[in-house]
Amino acid sequence: MHIIELEEIKSRLAGVDLIAKIESGFVAYSLGRSVVPPVGELVLERGEVHIKYGYIHSQPYYVIKIASGFSGNEQLGLPTGDGCMLLFCQQTGQLKSVLLDQGHLTDVRTAVAGAIAAKYFAPKSTTRIGIVGTGVQARVQLEYLESVTECRSVLVWGRSQVKLDRYVRDMRNGRPNSGFRIETTRDIAMIQQQCNLIVTTTPSTKPLLDAENLRPRTHITAVGSDTPDKQEIDSEILLRADLLIADSIPQCQLRGEISQGLRNKTLDLESVIELGHVIHGTAAARTDDSQITVVDLTGVAVQDIQISTAVFDGDVT
Amino acid sequence: MHIIELEEIKSRLAGVDLIAKIESGFVAYSLGRSVVPPVGELVLERGEVHIKYGYIHSQPYYVIKIASGFSGNEQLGLPTGDGCMLLFCQQTGQLKSVLLDQGHLTDVRTAVAGAIAAKYFAPKSTTRIGIVGTGVQARVQLEYLESVTECRSVLVWGRSQVKLDRYVRDMRNGRPNSGFRIETTRDIAMIQQQCNLIVTTTPSTKPLLDAENLRPRTHITAVGSDTPDKQEIDSEILLRADLLIADSIPQCQLRGEISQGLRNKTLDLESVIELGHVIHGTAAARTDDSQITVVDLTGVAVQDIQISTAVFDGDVT
Repeated sequence: MHIIELEEIKSRLAGVDLIAKIESGFVAYSLGRSVVPPVGELVLERGEVHIKYGYIHSQPYYVIKIASGFSGNEQLGLPTGDGCMLLFCQQTGQLKSVLLDQGHLTDVRTAVAGAIAAKYFAPKSTTRIGIVGTGVQARVQLEYLESVTECRSVLVWGRSQVKLDRYVRDMRNGRPNSGFRIETTRDIAMIQQQCNLIVTTTPSTKPLLDAENLRPRTHITAVGSDTPDKQEIDSEILLRADLLIADSIPQCQLRGEISQGLRNKTLDLESVIELGHVIHGTAAARTDDSQITVVDLTGVAVQDIQISTAVFDGDVT
Repeated sequence: MHIIELEEIKSRLAGVDLIAKIESGFVAYSLGRSVVPPVGELVLERGEVHIKYGYIHSQPYYVIKIASGFSGNEQLGLPTGDGCMLLFCQQTGQLKSVLLDQGHLTDVRTAVAGAIAAKYFAPKSTTRIGIVGTGVQARVQLEYLESVTECRSVLVWGRSQVKLDRYVRDMRNGRPNSGFRIETTRDIAMIQQQCNLIVTTTPSTKPLLDAENLRPRTHITAVGSDTPDKQEIDSEILLRADLLIADSIPQCQLRGEISQGLRNKTLDLESVIELGHVIHGTAAARTDDSQITVVDLTGVAVQDIQISTAVFDGDVT
């Protein structure tokens, strides 16, 4: 049994083609080549915990991933996320590895899913990237977009100018060669008016993006909402999208933007396509720059299976 | 973050009053002082995995427990169970400890629940203990009965004489001073005819104990069935019991003997009482030696919370 610490995990990740790994996980999921039970959820006074688990039939391990979000940790000077990933042998059930990733692998696999969404759905003429939020996902999402778009103009929205300034400073220090030119705004309407590749990363429970400001030629990746009560996007936007994509249709019925749309509006589940089918080529990606597209990411265990397996033994694609 | 290996876990367990700890967990559960979401379950080709998790409000940690059963491991010379327990801070979500118990703590907390069942429900005039099965639970259940009954006459049932002989040998070697006089039988009817404290510990999916052989003055603890499809006891026995007790009423509606009774027979959930209420004194234990009593144990996360917390910091009762 191997225990792998965060530094070693980061070093192993460097050599992995994460987009290919996570794409193949989504394909396995959408083609029914995996077993992914419903997400386990624990709600505490100060935070929430998600347990995502399952296995891909052709692979050696089943994986159990724990990731928590305790937003009040910020005031304590602690990271808001923690967690770990556990790999067990599918044949014998034996524990093979504990990845003490402190939530890092969840952050990364979520950002990689955002990059995959942009790869298939961002308009060719992406002129400005809009990031909604200033937390960890607001950072890693932008980092992982670097390899899938040539656009380097970025507008970041946040409620706090202090956090916006910190975001700009950290992104410059952390990725000095990315070439991103980052400006900030506290006016959410600016994001929709100026940006056509928008990533929402907040834990908001009230819509931030409204249908009034919705423009053609826009792609939105909705990352923040992963529970039944969180919502960053007016459900009207989902109705008006030319293409509406879920990372997992069963999960998006219960949590995330699509679940809100199903409850609030006359959103028809038939209009939702699953990301793995697009990657596999059995459903269409964006075909026209004028289209409006929305990808709703709730986070699927196959992402955890793929990234943890890659870290552990690096030989599964 | 502390990683605690099996040998250290066993050594720390030695000093713990496990019956008191697990009893207080059941009371917290039945009085609504805990949060225990539905059991997570993963079914694989060769085995099954249960994820049990939750927290008791007054305590410092939330606990996630993974335990697997891969019965075919026996042929490979490997233990059939594996798993671990994870403790996280309720205030910040931070991972505090990984207990690499390889399923041992699950075995022990299950056996302790069996001892608690016997403590409250075994007839005073227990003349012979009947153990159904020859696996790990068949052993630990008997070990933990030692402190709650004076009876030392034991009859063990199994299908294989080789396994029965090994059981007797192992129990003699492992607990030379227990004083148990163990005989064996391959005739299941003998268990019901000779024993009045019966513990069933098999993964059977067909009833082993039948209503025809049911006698007054009998207590049965049903340990083996913890899924919707497993069953060791004819549901008619549940109907005829004077007292029918569940470790968790919500769980027993979905898995275990009571769930079978609800599906197969006209068992009324109103007639089921919860173990924590009996321990707390708000429901009656056995009041008369002539009664027939059945305790259905499916395994509740509060047991995992209590035993893992006791191992980790030893100061919570």
